[in-house]
Amino acid sequence: MDETSFKLLAKYLPSTYVQQAKDARNTTNFLFNQLLEKGKWPEEGWSERNIEILLDELASLDSNNFLKNHGVGEREARIASSLVAKRNFHLGHGLGRSGDLTEVQPKAAGSSVLYQLTNDLARDVLRTMGVPDVKACFVAPLATGMSLTLIFLCLRQQQPKARYIIWSRIDQKSCFKSITTAGFEPIIVEPILNGDELVTDTGKIEAIMKQMNPELIACVMTTTSCFAPRACDDVETVAVFCKIYRVAHVINNAYGVQSTKCMHVIQQASKKGRVDAFVQSTDKNFMVPVGGTIIAGFDKSFVNKISQCYPGRASSSPIVDLFITLLSLGSKEYKTLARERKHLFQLLKEGLAIIASRFGQRVLDTPGNSISIGISLPPVKDPKLLTQLGSQLFLRCVSGTRVVSNLEIKVINGHEFRSWGAHHSNYPTGYLTAAATIGMTAVDVEQFLKRLTKVMESWSTKTIPMVLPSLTNGHDGFTHLLTSDHLVDQESSVI
Amino acid sequence: MDETSFKLLAKYLPSTYVQQAKDARNTTNFLFNQLLEKGKWPEEGWSERNIEILLDELASLDSNNFLKNHGVGEREARIASSLVAKRNFHLGHGLGRSGDLTEVQPKAAGSSVLYQLTNDLARDVLRTMGVPDVKACFVAPLATGMSLTLIFLCLRQQQPKARYIIWSRIDQKSCFKSITTAGFEPIIVEPILNGDELVTDTGKIEAIMKQMNPELIACVMTTTSCFAPRACDDVETVAVFCKIYRVAHVINNAYGVQSTKCMHVIQQASKKGRVDAFVQSTDKNFMVPVGGTIIAGFDKSFVNKISQCYPGRASSSPIVDLFITLLSLGSKEYKTLARERKHLFQLLKEGLAIIASRFGQRVLDTPGNSISIGISLPPVKDPKLLTQLGSQLFLRCVSGTRVVSNLEIKVINGHEFRSWGAHHSNYPTGYLTAAATIGMTAVDVEQFLKRLTKVMESWSTKTIPMVLPSLTNGHDGFTHLLTSDHLVDQESSVI
Amino acid sequence: MDETSFKLLAKYLPSTYVQQAKDARNTTNFLFNQLLEKGKWPEEGWSERNIEILLDELASLDSNNFLKNHGVGEREARIASSLVAKRNFHLGHGLGRSGDLTEVQPKAAGSSVLYQLTNDLARDVLRTMGVPDVKACFVAPLATGMSLTLIFLCLRQQQPKARYIIWSRIDQKSCFKSITTAGFEPIIVEPILNGDELVTDTGKIEAIMKQMNPELIACVMTTTSCFAPRACDDVETVAVFCKIYRVAHVINNAYGVQSTKCMHVIQQASKKGRVDAFVQSTDKNFMVPVGGTIIAGFDKSFVNKISQCYPGRASSSPIVDLFITLLSLGSKEYKTLARERKHLFQLLKEGLAIIASRFGQRVLDTPGNSISIGISLPPVKDPKLLTQLGSQLFLRCVSGTRVVSNLEIKVINGHEFRSWGAHHSNYPTGYLTAAATIGMTAVDVEQFLKRLTKVMESWSTKTIPMVLPSLTNGHDGFTHLLTSDHLVDQESSVI
Amino acid sequence: MDETSFKLLAKYLPSTYVQQAKDARNTTNFLFNQLLEKGKWPEEGWSERNIEILLDELASLDSNNFLKNHGVGEREARIASSLVAKRNFHLGHGLGRSGDLTEVQPKAAGSSVLYQLTNDLARDVLRTMGVPDVKACFVAPLATGMSLTLIFLCLRQQQPKARYIIWSRIDQKSCFKSITTAGFEPIIVEPILNGDELVTDTGKIEAIMKQMNPELIACVMTTTSCFAPRACDDVETVAVFCKIYRVAHVINNAYGVQSTKCMHVIQQASKKGRVDAFVQSTDKNFMVPVGGTIIAGFDKSFVNKISQCYPGRASSSPIVDLFITLLSLGSKEYKTLARERKHLFQLLKEGLAIIASRFGQRVLDTPGNSISIGISLPPVKDPKLLTQLGSQLFLRCVSGTRVVSNLEIKVINGHEFRSWGAHHSNYPTGYLTAAATIGMTAVDVEQFLKRLTKVMESWSTKTIPMVLPSLTNGHDGFTHLLTSDHLVDQESSVI
Repeated sequence: MDETSFKLLAKYLPSTYVQQAKDARNTTNFLFNQLLEKGKWPEEGWSERNIEILLDELASLDSNNFLKNHGVGEREARIASSLVAKRNFHLGHGLGRSGDLTEVQPKAAGSSVLYQLTNDLARDVLRTMGVPDVKACFVAPLATGMSLTLIFLCLRQQQPKARYIIWSRIDQKSCFKSITTAGFEPIIVEPILNGDELVTDTGKIEAIMKQMNPELIACVMTTTSCFAPRACDDVETVAVFCKIYRVAHVINNAYGVQSTKCMHVIQQASKKGRVDAFVQSTDKNFMVPVGGTIIAGFDKSFVNKISQCYPGRASSSPIVDLFITLLSLGSKEYKTLARERKHLFQLLKEGLAIIASRFGQRVLDTPGNSISIGISLPPVKDPKLLTQLGSQLFLRCVSGTRVVSNLEIKVINGHEFRSWGAHHSNYPTGYLTAAATIGMTAVDVEQFLKRLTKVMESWSTKTIPMVLPSLTNGHDGFTHLLTSDHLVDQESSVI
Repeated sequence: MDETSFKLLAKYLPSTYVQQAKDARNTTNFLFNQLLEKGKWPEEGWSERNIEILLDELASLDSNNFLKNHGVGEREARIASSLVAKRNFHLGHGLGRSGDLTEVQPKAAGSSVLYQLTNDLARDVLRTMGVPDVKACFVAPLATGMSLTLIFLCLRQQQPKARYIIWSRIDQKSCFKSITTAGFEPIIVEPILNGDELVTDTGKIEAIMKQMNPELIACVMTTTSCFAPRACDDVETVAVFCKIYRVAHVINNAYGVQSTKCMHVIQQASKKGRVDAFVQSTDKNFMVPVGGTIIAGFDKSFVNKISQCYPGRASSSPIVDLFITLLSLGSKEYKTLARERKHLFQLLKEGLAIIASRFGQRVLDTPGNSISIGISLPPVKDPKLLTQLGSQLFLRCVSGTRVVSNLEIKVINGHEFRSWGAHHSNYPTGYLTAAATIGMTAVDVEQFLKRLTKVMESWSTKTIPMVLPSLTNGHDGFTHLLTSDHLVDQESSVI
Repeated sequence: MDETSFKLLAKYLPSTYVQQAKDARNTTNFLFNQLLEKGKWPEEGWSERNIEILLDELASLDSNNFLKNHGVGEREARIASSLVAKRNFHLGHGLGRSGDLTEVQPKAAGSSVLYQLTNDLARDVLRTMGVPDVKACFVAPLATGMSLTLIFLCLRQQQPKARYIIWSRIDQKSCFKSITTAGFEPIIVEPILNGDELVTDTGKIEAIMKQMNPELIACVMTTTSCFAPRACDDVETVAVFCKIYRVAHVINNAYGVQSTKCMHVIQQASKKGRVDAFVQSTDKNFMVPVGGTIIAGFDKSFVNKISQCYPGRASSSPIVDLFITLLSLGSKEYKTLARERKHLFQLLKEGLAIIASRFGQRVLDTPGNSISIGISLPPVKDPKLLTQLGSQLFLRCVSGTRVVSNLEIKVINGHEFRSWGAHHSNYPTGYLTAAATIGMTAVDVEQFLKRLTKVMESWSTKTIPMVLPSLTNGHDGFTHLLTSDHLVDQESSVI
Repeated sequence: MDETSFKLLAKYLPSTYVQQAKDARNTTNFLFNQLLEKGKWPEEGWSERNIEILLDELASLDSNNFLKNHGVGEREARIASSLVAKRNFHLGHGLGRSGDLTEVQPKAAGSSVLYQLTNDLARDVLRTMGVPDVKACFVAPLATGMSLTLIFLCLRQQQPKARYIIWSRIDQKSCFKSITTAGFEPIIVEPILNGDELVTDTGKIEAIMKQMNPELIACVMTTTSCFAPRACDDVETVAVFCKIYRVAHVINNAYGVQSTKCMHVIQQASKKGRVDAFVQSTDKNFMVPVGGTIIAGFDKSFVNKISQCYPGRASSSPIVDLFITLLSLGSKEYKTLARERKHLFQLLKEGLAIIASRFGQRVLDTPGNSISIGISLPPVKDPKLLTQLGSQLFLRCVSGTRVVSNLEIKVINGHEFRSWGAHHSNYPTGYLTAAATIGMTAVDVEQFLKRLTKVMESWSTKTIPMVLPSLTNGHDGFTHLLTSDHLVDQESSVI
């Protein structure tokens, strides 16, 4: 509706109502205009209604939604199914042009604005959450592995002779494959065992850089967020070496946005040393479906080069999901969830300590990991018994635990990994991990601990017959951890 | 609802109604089961309601939708915004595992089935539309350019020494960049001018293969669907050479599924020669938003290798869009739309011939292009005048025309292209193209021709003052082309 | 978005794109403004997208959607469930105020406009479909029976002494109950048997009016659309008598909007005689869910009185459904559907004639009924056998047939009806009816005829063993009726 | 999906995943079956996803959603617009049959079950919220006024000679009109002024009953929830008189479900005396859009008679809204909201007391009203000044306050009311009311108090120049009332 519409409304309504309706509309428009002007993450979350209205408004700027448009090109964003049209808010043109993922599309002005806005919001999110010095970023419609590959392909264009990537081992196949798919050879630097914890072998990394022709090294890849007992990599030290030896440095900050610790080390690394790009998953940090990352850096021109490397268009769906979610939560709610996560991490740790001690085990001491926790498992004769423990938990509807034996050997793209899954060839014990991530609720923790206890009870009798000490503090020993009203209430805030 | 539910319904309903409701339900289940069993593209389209119910059913198999599930992993497909949850049908886990895009995800059985079903449907679509011998395919959550890059990266793993890709020039930047981003050097083979038409320089392609060490050549890339006056590449001959010289052959069949001609040449090429993979855009062929391709081939293991090359997970959104659309249209409706397109291509050609002749120009004779049509434009002093013609059409809400002068020079990734946009360094004339693609309606053609006439009238007076012959057949000369009732009705079938 | 928004967009977009987006937006606004200004049923249907945008715009005018609104009343249209909020487009205040259903609500300017617009559209629909002289109408959020009761209650207020309603018998319980629930006594005038057809006993109606004190008669109620073999009432003659004897006249035009015949007789009746109000179901005429009627009349003040009679507020849901549907279809599509219905009525009649003759029966000759058709059934010993025929059809997924024996007696509110269901105490034969109503497709007719044949075959062997003549024109004898392409295409136009 | 589907899934999935998916599905089915079996209001709210799935399942039982159904009746629930179909979950047949609103519809088994389930839930809600002895109820698709009319029309059928309804005056037009529209004459019993409060004149009510022929009295109508300074009627005493004098008793419990007090007096009244029916608005008590009530009683057969009085079918939309909302909230959340409301009532009262005293006014002492609060206003020369106060609040986006002067005279249906709006002919002062109702948040209270202060400041200078005492407790004096974290959190629970 426009000015004329409001005039026409006077046919139906007393003029005071028309005026008030206009005022109300202006309030909403003000909200939109603030966003367009500032490109900042709003503190207060928006209602879904207002988000939908803005998306409709933006979609109206795309030519396929022009009332009188007639397309005679090969791609006119016609959408055959109304179900598909609606779930995409009638946005059909995707992102980018052949030249650059972030370039404006003439046929899709609205989609282009939406993408730029989301990138602006994402940058503000990174700044707000602990990396104030970030210069540029874009939301890539690719999950973490493929995003890393894209960065590596971009590095290759800059450094055509490069053949290697120095990689602080982390046992996630997609990290490893991101290197090989990009056509590079990984130089694997296994972490050092420090007590229970696996920490970055910065010495070895430096040694390699020193020794090799830097032109042959595309970059060092480090990782912040990871499964215990591996710690967040010592990215600061690595960054310093990268600066000294003029080697690029790419950080996989997969689910690190939710952790002030992970964000802080990136910020510090950028100050002291060299960080070319750092990547964060949108699904793991912002509770959207899998499919996007924020690729960020401290040098605008390098970040632009990455987006320019992307050949052609891409799905805007991961961007739409992130845009909606960031507006819907607002920074206030997100920070509350992040604080809540931190609190639940403690609860989880305490609960696991109780269980572990009951079965003669212990929580692994991994102060460098602020998200994932491991408890040791007794040695078993048959490694299948360990697998069974995980299966039993999954059958009891506990998802996400990892049970790692210290025995498995795996060959990936010709590289043999001893104790695959443990980030280390020789970790001294089997263990089980669980993580406290954003969106988790106290009920999740409580139920997990209860079910784990039950499963451990039945499992331990099969594996290591023993007399269990009785619990002194009531039925299960965990509910007392979770009495805070606030915690329980919080649960309903995530669907 | 289950058997127990139906028993309980007897509390509310006479037993005959319960029985009839069960029967009706069985009919719907039969529909689902047929799909699960056969994996075939249904002839009759499904109602949106049934599609939604099936998607809901599949989503129910994902652990994040289990009523009692509690997740303690780092990625549990929690979805913060209910708007996001709904638009994704509560599917949060995306596609694939670290190992392989098409691998089953333990936490996401429903998503995994959905993906496999969509791949089965896609294969049936390719077979139905003209490539009966296709062996395997998967829907990649990447648009055409990045999909080509992925294939090239896979070829590199198989042939680590390869450095070059022989490329039958087509002036779409993303095609070119798909090569350079993958880290290869393009060997550009410009098409030959044959009358008005640009056809594949198969002689030169063979010469290169003959001359070079095949280990250095990753593949030849040809293109079927393209803008006139370039013709569909002679993929059959190229395929024969590729077989002889043991060079891989990748076909960009971007929007060729809608054209029986494009599909036929691929089928023939696979019979006579070598085709390693062919790629088709989902948006351009199936009227879904940008973001997916079908990557297909005649050797199952090579197609699998491509999907295994993909590092990590990916957005399932392009798959969901395609799944919905294929079920919604059914093969019957799709074939009708494809026939309709062919018919509109003729109408468009006739209409353009009338306009061209009125302005002393002609339709370019390009029998090898079944989708796009060009009309010559008079020589102008200032190439900006040609750009203006395109802008004026766009301002009149005609999208998709291309106006190509024969003068532009462009440098991309260090390669200089003369007459960029024309697929040829020396095309003898400027021209304007328009295309008849699937989903187009008779009204689109009619409005385009009317508006083009108006724009040409005003434009030609500015550029080449001339006396226009008057039209003899009525007001605009095009409506008579479009009198078929059927055509006009068809319009409403696409949203 | 407003002017400021477009200025801000220049930050993201080249100014030409901003301008074009504004132009496109103006086109949409023009569409809205035309509707607001004219209040006319658009000829071309609107896209769902534009309908949704307009509904969102209107909802924005309701105070519960004001961004800064805080309510301290007892009814503030808070909506607890977002699912409910969305399905109601965030419209919460319903219709009307205590004083009048059509009064503007201060807290709900948008809902008020929506209601007035719908009423304007409804009036235009009635005018377009054959009653050009209609003066006023409103969409009542009540189905037919309750709407009639509301009119009768209004008549009581005008004529406090009235105790009777003269009712041309039609055997639909809700019609009868609409009288008794309003507290009136029905004077039942049974139709006269004229050949096969039941026609209005206008003589008796006049006799009653003549004889009674008109102050005691609230009105005469006639019915247009009805089940065969009852004909549309002779509303013209009744209207003339009503004028002469100063008795109000209320017409139940339940599903008559789709029939030019029914609409025409109302128009004629209003010219020649007296029609106080006529009521049409929204679900039966416009394919929306049950729940609304259009209450119309030729005297604005009387129609207003009816709406003022309604005590308090009401659900706006039936209004929203009608508003969407009228805009979505447009008059062009609706008229096409109405023509289609007429055509299918003929096909249905021809098909039934074939079946009837095969079983020694005949189509009842009821020229005064343009929607419903009956075929005679053979006499059976046990009336349950007739019921079985209907059940068997229903079990074969044919809904909507009626099988009427000539034997049933029913007592409703103390009134005994012989042969209830037959509209007549003594109809000479049992029969089966089927109707051709708007939205029906040729496939519906074809499938019905096929299934009826099968059911009749098995049923007739049980009831009246006979030798069936073989069919001469192929397998089932009906498909040939349905060969028109147009017909088959039409099917897809209704969901 | 059915057993066969799960077998077929084994083609795509390892059997353990199939089993787990089946288990998960069974958990959901168990949830549904519990509801079908018990018909109880679940304690824990359901996810929107599960509610939607159940609604889809129920809709599948309606014949219009049968895959093979072909309708040849006059009402086949075809839905023309897919937008309309979706917002109604493909439910098209509405409620009821001609005989009875609660009767099962053969064509719409699912709709019928849905309605019965909702009625069962509603009964459980009333029992849970304070009227354990309620015997029967149904959700009427009518707002309060029309629901009362329906009850009165039913009473007329039982007592044909009745002409009057004794009405304890409450100044809501729809209450009054519910009597006159039903064709009755109100006998208005004005409440007695007791201090500031208006209480039921039970003496006069008894006197009328004593004096009149009870056959002439249809019923007494009392009201629980109302605007201050009127108190909840003394329904217990009235009930006792009704029992003694054999007069029916209908209670308007409009928004009383949210108040334990209102519910308690109804329960008590039913024990000590006579209550024939009590009516509660669904929108005011359950935060759904306007359009429904729960009509309840302590005698099943009388409640049935009311539903049987309803002539014909009705919209199921208000039922769907209530069904969704009750499942979505669950009793736990609803009770929390109700407690919250009680708490906010106190805060509101304290805040108003502060404001009132600042302007030399007072909170009216109305212990018998647990929802609405009034503050006195100074005498003004021109009653328009009072109206201005309300308008100014509305313009500042405060909705729901009422400003009542003691001067207005209104004639409704021939009855003259002095001081209309004040429930009393002679209330000694003008006043302003505000209410604390369910769904309100602490922010609503805070913002209202702040804005009221501002408006009063400017208004009082115009009307009664005076020196305002300064505030001692900070900026506005209200924020301190609202420090509870819990309160602020609660805000987000209502959309």
